[in-house]
Amino acid sequence: MMNKRFIAVIGGEKPAPREAKLAEEVGRELARQGAILVCGGLGGVMEAACRGAQSEGGVTIGILPGESRQAANPYVQIPIVTGIGHARNVAVVKSAQAVIAVDGSYGTLSEISYALDSGIPVIGLNTWSLSRNGRQDDSIILAQNPAEAVNKALNLATG
Amino acid sequence: MMNKRFIAVIGGEKPAPREAKLAEEVGRELARQGAILVCGGLGGVMEAACRGAQSEGGVTIGILPGESRQAANPYVQIPIVTGIGHARNVAVVKSAQAVIAVDGSYGTLSEISYALDSGIPVIGLNTWSLSRNGRQDDSIILAQNPAEAVNKALNLATG
Amino acid sequence: MMNKRFIAVIGGEKPAPREAKLAEEVGRELARQGAILVCGGLGGVMEAACRGAQSEGGVTIGILPGESRQAANPYVQIPIVTGIGHARNVAVVKSAQAVIAVDGSYGTLSEISYALDSGIPVIGLNTWSLSRNGRQDDSIILAQNPAEAVNKALNLATG
Amino acid sequence: MMNKRFIAVIGGEKPAPREAKLAEEVGRELARQGAILVCGGLGGVMEAACRGAQSEGGVTIGILPGESRQAANPYVQIPIVTGIGHARNVAVVKSAQAVIAVDGSYGTLSEISYALDSGIPVIGLNTWSLSRNGRQDDSIILAQNPAEAVNKALNLATG
Repeated sequence: MMNKRFIAVIGGEKPAPREAKLAEEVGRELARQGAILVCGGLGGVMEAACRGAQSEGGVTIGILPGESRQAANPYVQIPIVTGIGHARNVAVVKSAQAVIAVDGSYGTLSEISYALDSGIPVIGLNTWSLSRNGRQDDSIILAQNPAEAVNKALNLATG
Repeated sequence: MMNKRFIAVIGGEKPAPREAKLAEEVGRELARQGAILVCGGLGGVMEAACRGAQSEGGVTIGILPGESRQAANPYVQIPIVTGIGHARNVAVVKSAQAVIAVDGSYGTLSEISYALDSGIPVIGLNTWSLSRNGRQDDSIILAQNPAEAVNKALNLATG
Repeated sequence: MMNKRFIAVIGGEKPAPREAKLAEEVGRELARQGAILVCGGLGGVMEAACRGAQSEGGVTIGILPGESRQAANPYVQIPIVTGIGHARNVAVVKSAQAVIAVDGSYGTLSEISYALDSGIPVIGLNTWSLSRNGRQDDSIILAQNPAEAVNKALNLATG
Repeated sequence: MMNKRFIAVIGGEKPAPREAKLAEEVGRELARQGAILVCGGLGGVMEAACRGAQSEGGVTIGILPGESRQAANPYVQIPIVTGIGHARNVAVVKSAQAVIAVDGSYGTLSEISYALDSGIPVIGLNTWSLSRNGRQDDSIILAQNPAEAVNKALNLATG
């Protein structure tokens, strides 16, 4: 599977229905294109993306914060149990070659930050935008829809 | 020292001279007010803040990412060697009751995110500003100068 | 794959040829029995076990300490990049339902300790033995050969 | 404080009264000799050692596994809140220049393992003993009493 591309989908546990649909469609499209889905393994955006990927026969990896595999959403096929809490956010992004952020709160923002800090491309769908010391930061690559997000992620997933 | 307040100063390794001065003055003011300074232990903003605190007789803690205490800047009195890389950012903010962000790049943004996710107040001096899904997020409390930043941090450091 | 059993194989990076052969045969037998192999992703015992598993069509997961997937041995199919150094040893054992230790040095002993601390069964092949405050500790379940180690691990992998 | 020596005291949360007394005396002796005590910040051996150190005016650091400083024992002066669970064991030993193990269960054994793996001297008082693949491993330096343990630790604390 080392030839396959690993793409992380990040986002919050309590998305609005619209964002949950976006995440599910991102998961489906990743699976159709043969990519492996990496996520934080819990509910909300993570679960929607895994459900989408599994419905198209894709492989799903959930990198969990807690001490037990039981916390994984039912569409995670490969649960990684880290036991390191929020610090597992680092592992979610570093295990991917590109990251797609859908909506999301501060936990998602920490993952976006780690990805940008590590030079891992971040594609954004209805997510954070940043400015630093008064200047707009355009590092998050915008996408208009799930298909565009997946295509951009796969094109940039070279690391 | 449990009665003392623990305040983190976060920011990048390569600040402009102006931001380095701000950080040093933040460190000095924290020490004058009897607070204990927590930081990531390395150079730039972290070193400037520690130098300021030490010049006023304050206590400085550096929570290091690597495997050796030798990496600490010379003004760190209590080096904590985590060996967990960037994941130590979680420990920097969780060990503080309030956080002062001075300038900073994506590593700093990950720390801001963790703090906001944990309900730890963040005071900003020339640092990031955020908007989520098109709406301004005002969670970072702005300060105009080091004294104001320190006063706001100490007032909010109740956790 | 959640119905599949996840078994960790732990051991050092510099095994003697005899222990490397044991590890490879453990990997082969795990794959024949349909288990998924979890390991630390590097060389030595980890690589030998992955090579064995892959030769029988098994799935191999490598939970890496560093910042890059490039450090994975060539038989790791699913590299998890943690960036947390030796602290990833926790994730290696917690991601498994039973652990097989082959030879190994102090890093392996830390993994054995974490597994026993978490109630995860440990099967030993030519590895550490322990006594605490003068009394023998028999928590490590001994096996005489790879097939016996794999059978014991699969029987105990109920968590 | 960088000239001061940092010594970790490790051991379990439920020591017998005899081991708790040993730990308290170790803490007292470390403080008398001007060393800074590092520990995991919780109860049992950790609390006894901190109580001893504080009674002699020493400085105590507790590197906590959880998300809150409230979990620290009342004799911890400098609580470090890591949020990374058992993985914080790495930080406890790496932040010290020598380690004194008093009694202890598997968590303590993981800390002993990490210390030996990192070349940090380990002094043992009524604790684990090890053999690897049938051969005794004498890496843990035995001490007969707290004063001897502290003297050996301070002599070896050169890193």
